[in-house]
Amino acid sequence: MRQYLLASHGSLSEGLLDSVEMILGKNHKISTISAYKKGDYDLNEQLKSVISNIDKDDELIIISDIFGGSVNNECMKLLADDRVHLISGMNLSLVIELFTLDNDKISTSDLIKKALKDSKESILYCNNIINEEIEDEEF
Amino acid sequence: MRQYLLASHGSLSEGLLDSVEMILGKNHKISTISAYKKGDYDLNEQLKSVISNIDKDDELIIISDIFGGSVNNECMKLLADDRVHLISGMNLSLVIELFTLDNDKISTSDLIKKALKDSKESILYCNNIINEEIEDEEF
Repeated sequence: MRQYLLASHGSLSEGLLDSVEMILGKNHKISTISAYKKGDYDLNEQLKSVISNIDKDDELIIISDIFGGSVNNECMKLLADDRVHLISGMNLSLVIELFTLDNDKISTSDLIKKALKDSKESILYCNNIINEEIEDEEF
Repeated sequence: MRQYLLASHGSLSEGLLDSVEMILGKNHKISTISAYKKGDYDLNEQLKSVISNIDKDDELIIISDIFGGSVNNECMKLLADDRVHLISGMNLSLVIELFTLDNDKISTSDLIKKALKDSKESILYCNNIINEEIEDEEF
């Protein structure tokens, strides 16, 4: 089974989970880490605790807030564990795609690649779409 | 001057602002809409209220949660107003890039295109990066 973890600086993870659940309903396979909200916070300890709760045959897909940020950097250290997969750049489309496409027949690698592609394609400058539609109508 | 609005289903917008401010500090040019948290919620009314507070020479860059979602669809209706720009697919990298690149010399269109490109490039399957590095070391 695949478990999911949203990991971010501050409350982004909790906010994203709220929005995902508003659209898809409650999901018990997903947890969140909102890092550095307190001065003495230890991200490494919290990640270790999440990993220790993953069964040996399960996988953990971590979705972090930003590539190159300290949350993602800390998560990178977990990749020696074959059960861990890490995606940087969380957004709503990415998580919805992962949950919608997730099933026993798709490999984790294919699931992630497909969700990443769809997620990137849905980041759009919408003014350009409107302008293209107007041009299409004109010609 | 450019104003910014994060608009989402549920709390994603507030969570993202919390994370942005943790990294970049407080920003008074940005506001949030967390839609549909109450049953009798009227998104159109709230958007109108935001627009009414934009000076005639200012611009508003709206960053919505997901293309095709009802929040983005409602924002699309505002694009008849030349001061309004709309991006779908909010993530942390996108907002940080917008704020970091924003200055008087760059056009709004160029600002958005550059931030979009950087944002898409930072959505990554990090396991592949590690594997590529190992391959580079081997050959």
